[in-house]
Amino acid sequence: MQFRQLFDHRSSTYTYLVWNEDTRDAAIIDPVREQVERDSQLIDELGLHLRFALETHVHADHITGSGLLRERFGCKIGVHNQVDSDCPDIKLVDDDYVSLGSQQLEVLYTPGHTDTDVCYLADGVIFTGDILLIHGSGRTDFQSGDAARSYDSITGRLFTLPEETLVYPAHDYSGFTCSTIGEEKRFNPRLGGERTREEYIRIMDEMVLDKPGLIDIAVPGNQACGLDRQG
Amino acid sequence: MQFRQLFDHRSSTYTYLVWNEDTRDAAIIDPVREQVERDSQLIDELGLHLRFALETHVHADHITGSGLLRERFGCKIGVHNQVDSDCPDIKLVDDDYVSLGSQQLEVLYTPGHTDTDVCYLADGVIFTGDILLIHGSGRTDFQSGDAARSYDSITGRLFTLPEETLVYPAHDYSGFTCSTIGEEKRFNPRLGGERTREEYIRIMDEMVLDKPGLIDIAVPGNQACGLDRQG
Repeated sequence: MQFRQLFDHRSSTYTYLVWNEDTRDAAIIDPVREQVERDSQLIDELGLHLRFALETHVHADHITGSGLLRERFGCKIGVHNQVDSDCPDIKLVDDDYVSLGSQQLEVLYTPGHTDTDVCYLADGVIFTGDILLIHGSGRTDFQSGDAARSYDSITGRLFTLPEETLVYPAHDYSGFTCSTIGEEKRFNPRLGGERTREEYIRIMDEMVLDKPGLIDIAVPGNQACGLDRQG
Repeated sequence: MQFRQLFDHRSSTYTYLVWNEDTRDAAIIDPVREQVERDSQLIDELGLHLRFALETHVHADHITGSGLLRERFGCKIGVHNQVDSDCPDIKLVDDDYVSLGSQQLEVLYTPGHTDTDVCYLADGVIFTGDILLIHGSGRTDFQSGDAARSYDSITGRLFTLPEETLVYPAHDYSGFTCSTIGEEKRFNPRLGGERTREEYIRIMDEMVLDKPGLIDIAVPGNQACGLDRQG
């Protein structure tokens, strides 16, 4: 499995293009609507067959490019099965597989940032969405976020992966591009090292954060796969 | 050889931390002064021994962190041997090797953006600095830049590498993180596909570009390895 990391500067979102090197079957994870032209050109240049546009959750900070990519490439849109939306083609649950030829992305249900978070695991690389960030974690104060569930998803599920597993999140604001499970277990300031579940919950609950500027547009826009032209 | 890509948002600069997984000997390529704390923390967390701070050229858009890293880690600063500066420890020439334990970074002299451009090649990955960007190339209108030399360095040297060689440049402004030699040979709009040397020189010479805002500070600052506190 090969992949390419892409960045949207306005929303600091990482998008990932993942493909089977033999068959060229591909999936894009967390595409951003403003970057559909860029991403489509790359897909064409790499000679890929885009089979899936996958979301790690319903984003509150950007609108997905999945609907436009489906119109262009005929790919299927996949999200967690609890997402309240009619437009996706595939509703994913924990332990599902998304097949790219003979290779597979494994779906891990990891709620806590929202109640529909999934991660995608392939070949020693995990795409973690917003649940686990590099030395951080997605906020838990809106969209059914829950600090206790976040802690359990990260420590009970992601931290059981091999330490050398590469962590590729949906955002970074400090110029990091990736991490590893081992680094996050040791050094994530919120839940690495000796941090307890209670400490993590307190840290998350005590955060005073602005409401995301785009949330009232982005959430309904994403529930419409980015095809609500009002978005 | 392992590596980690890092980004400085203000100058859109990519820095690379490269290391020998067995011995933990490491080099940092194109560090940015404002990111020295971030990069130092990562070096410590990864348990690396920073042996070298390497530049791909004398940058005009940011000030290097090499001097501060040398103070902190005792690493040696390496630049091309035509760089007009007394502060580096090592002056590199074409075909030199920088050793990290039993593994090596190969130095390729690739002038054209400036007259002191070098690339570093390791294990199927080339760090190209500003000479070859993703679907672009570094400007050739100042600092001894020369479009004909740029063309010859890129097509005569870099494009002779295996097509699957991963290209990691010193900048990107569109959210791309890497490319391959094969993609750049085919799709780089300035010199890929059927473009001729004459076309490339014309394209570069016809560009009307603003003078880099920081050049009058950054070039002398970098000639002092970022230790000129006036910088």
